[in-house]
Amino acid sequence: MDTLLKLADHGQSYWLDNLTRNKIQSGELHRRAYQEGLRGITSNPAIFGKAIAASDLYDRQIEEAVAAGRTVPQIYEALTTTDVRDACDILHPVYDVSEGRDGFVSLEVSPHLAHDTEATRAEARRLWHAVDRPNLLIKIPGTRAGLPAIEACLFEGINVNVTLLFSIPAYQSVAWAYIRALERRLAAGLPIERIASVASFFLSRIDVLVDPLLAQRIRPGAVHGASPVAERLLGRAAVANARLAYQRFKTIIAAERWRWLEAKGARVQRLLWASTSTKNPRYRDVMYVEPLIGPHTVNTMPDETIAAFADHGAVPDTDSVEEEIEEAEQVMRDLRRIGIDFGRVAGQLLNEGIQKFIDPYDASLAILAEKARKLARRDVARPLEQMAQKLRRTIIRMTTEAGSGHPTSSMSAAEIMATLFFHELRWDPTAPEARNVDHFVLSKGHAAPALWAVLYEAGAIAEDPMTLRRIDSTLEGHPTPRNPWVKVATGSLGQGLAAACGIVLADRLDGIDGRVYCLLGDGECSEGSVWEAAQFAALNKLSGLVAIVDVNGLGQSGPAPYDHDLSVFEQRFEAYGWQTIQVDGHKVTDLLDAFEQARAGGPTAILARTEKGKGVSFLEGKGGFHGKPLDQEQARKALEEIVEVDQRLRVEPRRVAGPDRPPSVEGAAPIEVSYRPGELVATRAAYGAALKKLGSSFRDLVVLDGDVKNSTYTEHFERAYPDRFFQGHIAEQNLTGVALGLAAMGKRPHVSSFACFLTRAFDFIRMAGHSAPKHLVFNGSHAGVSIGEDGPSQMGLEDLAMFRAVAGSTVLYPADAVSAERLTEAAMQTEGIVYIRTTRAKTPVLYGDDEPFPVGGAKVLRESAGDRLTVVAAGITLHEALAAQEKLQRQGIPLRVIDAYSVKPLDAETLRRAARQTGGIVVVEDHWRAGGLGEAVASALAGIGIAFRHLAVDGEPRSGKPSEMLDRHGISGHAIETAVREMLGAERRAAPRWRVYG
Amino acid sequence: MDTLLKLADHGQSYWLDNLTRNKIQSGELHRRAYQEGLRGITSNPAIFGKAIAASDLYDRQIEEAVAAGRTVPQIYEALTTTDVRDACDILHPVYDVSEGRDGFVSLEVSPHLAHDTEATRAEARRLWHAVDRPNLLIKIPGTRAGLPAIEACLFEGINVNVTLLFSIPAYQSVAWAYIRALERRLAAGLPIERIASVASFFLSRIDVLVDPLLAQRIRPGAVHGASPVAERLLGRAAVANARLAYQRFKTIIAAERWRWLEAKGARVQRLLWASTSTKNPRYRDVMYVEPLIGPHTVNTMPDETIAAFADHGAVPDTDSVEEEIEEAEQVMRDLRRIGIDFGRVAGQLLNEGIQKFIDPYDASLAILAEKARKLARRDVARPLEQMAQKLRRTIIRMTTEAGSGHPTSSMSAAEIMATLFFHELRWDPTAPEARNVDHFVLSKGHAAPALWAVLYEAGAIAEDPMTLRRIDSTLEGHPTPRNPWVKVATGSLGQGLAAACGIVLADRLDGIDGRVYCLLGDGECSEGSVWEAAQFAALNKLSGLVAIVDVNGLGQSGPAPYDHDLSVFEQRFEAYGWQTIQVDGHKVTDLLDAFEQARAGGPTAILARTEKGKGVSFLEGKGGFHGKPLDQEQARKALEEIVEVDQRLRVEPRRVAGPDRPPSVEGAAPIEVSYRPGELVATRAAYGAALKKLGSSFRDLVVLDGDVKNSTYTEHFERAYPDRFFQGHIAEQNLTGVALGLAAMGKRPHVSSFACFLTRAFDFIRMAGHSAPKHLVFNGSHAGVSIGEDGPSQMGLEDLAMFRAVAGSTVLYPADAVSAERLTEAAMQTEGIVYIRTTRAKTPVLYGDDEPFPVGGAKVLRESAGDRLTVVAAGITLHEALAAQEKLQRQGIPLRVIDAYSVKPLDAETLRRAARQTGGIVVVEDHWRAGGLGEAVASALAGIGIAFRHLAVDGEPRSGKPSEMLDRHGISGHAIETAVREMLGAERRAAPRWRVYG
Repeated sequence: MDTLLKLADHGQSYWLDNLTRNKIQSGELHRRAYQEGLRGITSNPAIFGKAIAASDLYDRQIEEAVAAGRTVPQIYEALTTTDVRDACDILHPVYDVSEGRDGFVSLEVSPHLAHDTEATRAEARRLWHAVDRPNLLIKIPGTRAGLPAIEACLFEGINVNVTLLFSIPAYQSVAWAYIRALERRLAAGLPIERIASVASFFLSRIDVLVDPLLAQRIRPGAVHGASPVAERLLGRAAVANARLAYQRFKTIIAAERWRWLEAKGARVQRLLWASTSTKNPRYRDVMYVEPLIGPHTVNTMPDETIAAFADHGAVPDTDSVEEEIEEAEQVMRDLRRIGIDFGRVAGQLLNEGIQKFIDPYDASLAILAEKARKLARRDVARPLEQMAQKLRRTIIRMTTEAGSGHPTSSMSAAEIMATLFFHELRWDPTAPEARNVDHFVLSKGHAAPALWAVLYEAGAIAEDPMTLRRIDSTLEGHPTPRNPWVKVATGSLGQGLAAACGIVLADRLDGIDGRVYCLLGDGECSEGSVWEAAQFAALNKLSGLVAIVDVNGLGQSGPAPYDHDLSVFEQRFEAYGWQTIQVDGHKVTDLLDAFEQARAGGPTAILARTEKGKGVSFLEGKGGFHGKPLDQEQARKALEEIVEVDQRLRVEPRRVAGPDRPPSVEGAAPIEVSYRPGELVATRAAYGAALKKLGSSFRDLVVLDGDVKNSTYTEHFERAYPDRFFQGHIAEQNLTGVALGLAAMGKRPHVSSFACFLTRAFDFIRMAGHSAPKHLVFNGSHAGVSIGEDGPSQMGLEDLAMFRAVAGSTVLYPADAVSAERLTEAAMQTEGIVYIRTTRAKTPVLYGDDEPFPVGGAKVLRESAGDRLTVVAAGITLHEALAAQEKLQRQGIPLRVIDAYSVKPLDAETLRRAARQTGGIVVVEDHWRAGGLGEAVASALAGIGIAFRHLAVDGEPRSGKPSEMLDRHGISGHAIETAVREMLGAERRAAPRWRVYG
Repeated sequence: MDTLLKLADHGQSYWLDNLTRNKIQSGELHRRAYQEGLRGITSNPAIFGKAIAASDLYDRQIEEAVAAGRTVPQIYEALTTTDVRDACDILHPVYDVSEGRDGFVSLEVSPHLAHDTEATRAEARRLWHAVDRPNLLIKIPGTRAGLPAIEACLFEGINVNVTLLFSIPAYQSVAWAYIRALERRLAAGLPIERIASVASFFLSRIDVLVDPLLAQRIRPGAVHGASPVAERLLGRAAVANARLAYQRFKTIIAAERWRWLEAKGARVQRLLWASTSTKNPRYRDVMYVEPLIGPHTVNTMPDETIAAFADHGAVPDTDSVEEEIEEAEQVMRDLRRIGIDFGRVAGQLLNEGIQKFIDPYDASLAILAEKARKLARRDVARPLEQMAQKLRRTIIRMTTEAGSGHPTSSMSAAEIMATLFFHELRWDPTAPEARNVDHFVLSKGHAAPALWAVLYEAGAIAEDPMTLRRIDSTLEGHPTPRNPWVKVATGSLGQGLAAACGIVLADRLDGIDGRVYCLLGDGECSEGSVWEAAQFAALNKLSGLVAIVDVNGLGQSGPAPYDHDLSVFEQRFEAYGWQTIQVDGHKVTDLLDAFEQARAGGPTAILARTEKGKGVSFLEGKGGFHGKPLDQEQARKALEEIVEVDQRLRVEPRRVAGPDRPPSVEGAAPIEVSYRPGELVATRAAYGAALKKLGSSFRDLVVLDGDVKNSTYTEHFERAYPDRFFQGHIAEQNLTGVALGLAAMGKRPHVSSFACFLTRAFDFIRMAGHSAPKHLVFNGSHAGVSIGEDGPSQMGLEDLAMFRAVAGSTVLYPADAVSAERLTEAAMQTEGIVYIRTTRAKTPVLYGDDEPFPVGGAKVLRESAGDRLTVVAAGITLHEALAAQEKLQRQGIPLRVIDAYSVKPLDAETLRRAARQTGGIVVVEDHWRAGGLGEAVASALAGIGIAFRHLAVDGEPRSGKPSEMLDRHGISGHAIETAVREMLGAERRAAPRWRVYG
């Protein structure tokens, strides 16, 4: 302290270069002024910026200003002038006691105006009046444009701190401007006693620029002889320059012109040493303080330099600023001698200096803007936080009332749901069918209570949440489309993201600028299907897709595999090409920021750290509560912990760009089919041909294929309609999920793969059934053992069983090209899930081009009054049946042959008639014995007393020629023939004869 | 050049500090010596190491030495002495012309010996004789231990370069050692004219150490006054020290003692300036050359310093080494004055110097060892490369012969397969059933030809590869366990890795130290199941697992999603916690390295960049060839491009640690079951209870659960047998795949989840069926609409259809706790895939504790002679049937009730008997109408004329109470009652009466 106080003995004031509201409000400024000898303070935008960002002392003022509609520059000015005025008041006694010589606070004009005289003058005037204190200094750069403004301000009676002085000529001009202003005031009869000004001369920046110039002259290869000179000059230019400036100051105040003004009461324009912290750590930290002590000077220092000087600074007996003047002159000469032009140095520093004012000024405005945004966001957040609490209360009440459900998994998502539905989502609570809105998919379907609660609060459903899980309510245990807000049923985990991808694709096709939000749990991210969707989204650049992962760290039966480690999800999503954002999922401001960031384009994964059961002490993060409602007593306790709020938020209905409903499909004319009878065509090829034809009339027909388009022949469609074809690669679950999303938005998707690989998607197909899409068609090619050499892994032998056991499904199985095309056509008009089974091998065309193939029908291909038995077949086995029929016919055994192309619904009537008329049925199919055509027929004919034989695949298939395989598994023409002979033989042996009943 | 040549005018030789074989063989050394005035050369281990690593000039010598069984230090010495000897020969004319004064090459002794006099002396002698050239200098550090060795060597006539001299006292000792040696030689009557020695005095290292000591004294806060002195001394210590050393040298050679030796023909021991490149970029790059020029000196420089000096070095007119001697003394005094003890500096530098010799010496040996290893590896690789070509030929021939198959996908893996099977894999080609070996899983099953080819070449199969895909061959289109080397069937992509995980788990359980290799395609990595397995492997720390991804960049129908971008796979596997290694998949040396690296522990993913169709110009990397064999003409052309080799490699059968076969399971006593009749117990709970009991007798029983262990009750087993319980998290496909891998190794796995979620794994279950595991049990809980409130997504309604349509499956459906336990017990002894369906709700116990439940049986629960109809039910509906029966019984309508607990195989006999006896059947099941119990019964009774009604789930289910749901879907007791009444009414109306036939 003593050291600092001693400066005054030499006529030097020390000022602090750090004005913040904290220094004012904490009393620090007062203490320093009245205990530590501080005589003034300067402010700058960098310091203001940091202070605004780091403390909350400015927050209220910012909030009020924001509320009052102020712009960011206006708020900045309000904050800074407030601080400066307060500082002026604190230092006012110093000003008074020193009779206007000291106790100043300086405030700078916008550095953007540095080259504009008039604007600088106007701004200075405005700030002067805004602060309205006599001990204010307006800081103005001493540029060419600044000088007239400085003079004008001083003339007007505005005190000026002239800044950014690096050279003696520049200082000289400033000094004259001051003198002229005072002279003009006197001439105008104005007082000059209280006109104050300082000329800020910069120190460390000079050495920072000059030292490297010197170093260049020390480097190897430099001009011979320069090296020792340069070395000697390191770190000496700034102080030498300042000392010489001080000599110039002395000359000025010694001149007659000044003496006259002084006699009239003028105060000297003091030299202020600025930029006095040491930048080079090899130099002493007080190198710009110790050597510059003398009368009529100010040293303005940052806190660290003041502290260093107080600690180990030395105050000499004599005025150090007066020392080594000759050496200083030598330094300047030496610089010249080794080619360093000081004038150019000063010019560069002035330009850089203005930029160094502009950058933090702009940065501070940016910081302020961000802060203002955050504070405004806090206002947005508060009601959403309350809404989240309200959702929690409803969630607890509805699940306790239902006696089952998943309250804790719903509670972890309360803030996410509130923020999404009441802020981010562009939707219309009155229009569940609206197309031109954002969409939401609840992949973690067990959090249905959260969805119902938020829809209820938004006024989107009228149903009482307390009806949860009741048989007459649409608020089911897991979301189903029974509730109009649910587009796809969820509840089997890991499926929502694929559907969300499909919705984004539909938006893209329909020119709708929506975003799709999908809420996932962390546990379900163990399902590979999530990552199939992640890959698909990135490959297809689905920028409107936002996945939110509710990382509550707990699964059903224990901790989730990665607890709360968000980094795992970050790494994975990023490895799949997503943008990721980590947030505290219970912090609405975080969520608001994240959603805003996601708008810039994704796909984006918002990774939200949450707690299961958040909000209730005995549930939060606790295991053992998955899927368990609270009992009445627990619920009472829980509700006590959650503040009851009377929050009524309204959702402002918002639509996005794009049509509400995409143009509907034109009336579809029948496709043209043209084959020669007996022509060999694979049904899979006919399917592909039909698809392409249908593409022209059905503009909502979209096709997805899993890297087998050249086997399923969907490649024809792709070539014709590339925009409506989606390559899903080898990921059949995702293909199905995406298709379901497309279907939910009104498209008619076809999913094509090998029949056997569709089993990969059974859970997705099952859920698609529960989603009841208007249209969703699957095509499984390469059915049955008849594919031959590729072996069992490639044989679809369970596809009929699988698709028959799907809610509301239709199963079609064409045997030739005509029926394949016609059934593909029929599938387009059939509601629900349709499966078309096709065959690898080429088979002969059986039907005329215009033969109709209604769903639910069958074709009696061979028939006579004396038919001894009926063979029911479909697909490949129909050709075997016809071969057997032909052979037996030649042997006098007429058979009826039925093409059961509609496996579900089955043409039971035709089958029953044939059974009655022929007294026996042989069903033959290229499928496992269970669940296929045979059992469907047996079921349709159950109770009818006839001869019945079911030829189907038993035993493990293998590689072999197609014909060998049909034989091996007893479904070939030969096997049919044998079966018929056996049955007829058995008939002969049996007594009484086969009779038909029922 | 002129500048360099001028050094000789001052009596200074310049040497090069960089001896490499390239400099010798390229003629550079010769050119420099005879055109540029170079007079000597020094070598060091760092330079040798770099040269060995970077060039192939040493390779042949290394290979020969390796082949001759030399150790790495021996090889190192052979390489260096060869180079040194060759350099000696090149410089010999210089030596001759200068009469032994110059033209030296120096070679250092191992720095590890620096503190061992005797060892140094022995090594010096050995190297001297190994090189055997008069112009060799043996480099020996001038340590305390070194001095006697130096003197002894010199006495023996070995020339010595004394190195690592930093101080004048050290130099002085060395000089005396030289003089003494010469004196002793004279005394012993030995010649001294050709004894040569240099004393290597180090330069730059001194400044590198001293400068920071000076800088410490310049920093702020340093002792007052030290700063300017310290600043002046920067970069001056080394040269000052060297100049003073030179003065000492002059004193020595001026002394009488030396003059006497000189008169006898002695050569002076020259001072050699070493470490003369400038380290501080601020200093001149020739600062250690220019000031040290004078007679009897050598300056040894690296190439850069020689080039710099040639470019801008200055040679003064006078000897610069003699200049500024007083200043040099002042420098040393000043150092002392500011507290820098030069003696201590020299001591530190000597110690550091030895370490700086040791480190590169060791590094060079390591480099050499690596190089030797790589060269040896090349020998290992060559036959494997030839084997890969052989495999390609076989692959082409076998697929062309078969007329189908995937040659190009097999060819991309040829090197991988050859390297794996003929080098890395520890296996026994005679023992396909061996347990204690490494295992291989071909996840990309379509590359089967590569597998068959490599097995054939290894002598593991006798079957002719040309039988590929024939009906009588085990070489099927995709691998199946029909071939004994195939443990799990593959061909549906993305499944192998899960099975491989299961095999690793089995190894762990059985104490077998094997590794499991799984070959995947890049395309199949789009399947999420691959990543489920990746997560499982990392979470379970399956360090023995090695995935090899054959990234050939092409899918079936077009490019794979990421072409050849290995980084995508790297990021993903690493995001899942795997080690990754990228290799060129056609470079056997790369593969050998990668496999070796993988041994250190993983899981490891080897990402192999390959080309589809590699080896044949018109196939390589070309689209359109997937799954297509070449025709005869194409095959001929292709084979022309692949060199025919007569490579006969033998696989050395290798087993790993661990038992060949794990101990077999003890005879299983029946479990004890104990319930009260009518007690309410959920069948899922009874299943869990039975599992735990079975765990004690079946030590091969393992249980996998997908985060629902508290619902399926497998948690009881986990608690009792934590080592045999695997938490698979929410990833049912992977659960199934892992279980299959375990089953393939002889375990009896149970996979438990909700019935509906098992549909997720249908493709895996299907493939498991084709894999024909001895035992693999699935348990699906929460079957049917009777689960109630959770809604359709959680209802297993297709599980019976699914599991019935699986190769060789058994389907069991207990209705009470006793049957649940007994059927769980029966499942353990049932071969193939067994499905046990359990119910969520508690149901009353119906059976006595010891009631037997054979697979394929049924229980007639209610029976009387007058039964009017039979109700067939299972599981939950059995209780509904019993309720209906009871009610109707009271109303005088007796019914037969059958518990069809064995859905597959079905007890057709019992059903037929009941049908015949009661004339009618009502089947009632909580399952979709298709594929379940009803169709199974209809199929079993097909052709029998009876009354038949099938009550099953139609229409979309929903949330509601269990009883409400049973009613809603017409499968409740009430619905049964109604059906019976209707049927009996219909019977009355019908004429003739229902009759039984067949």
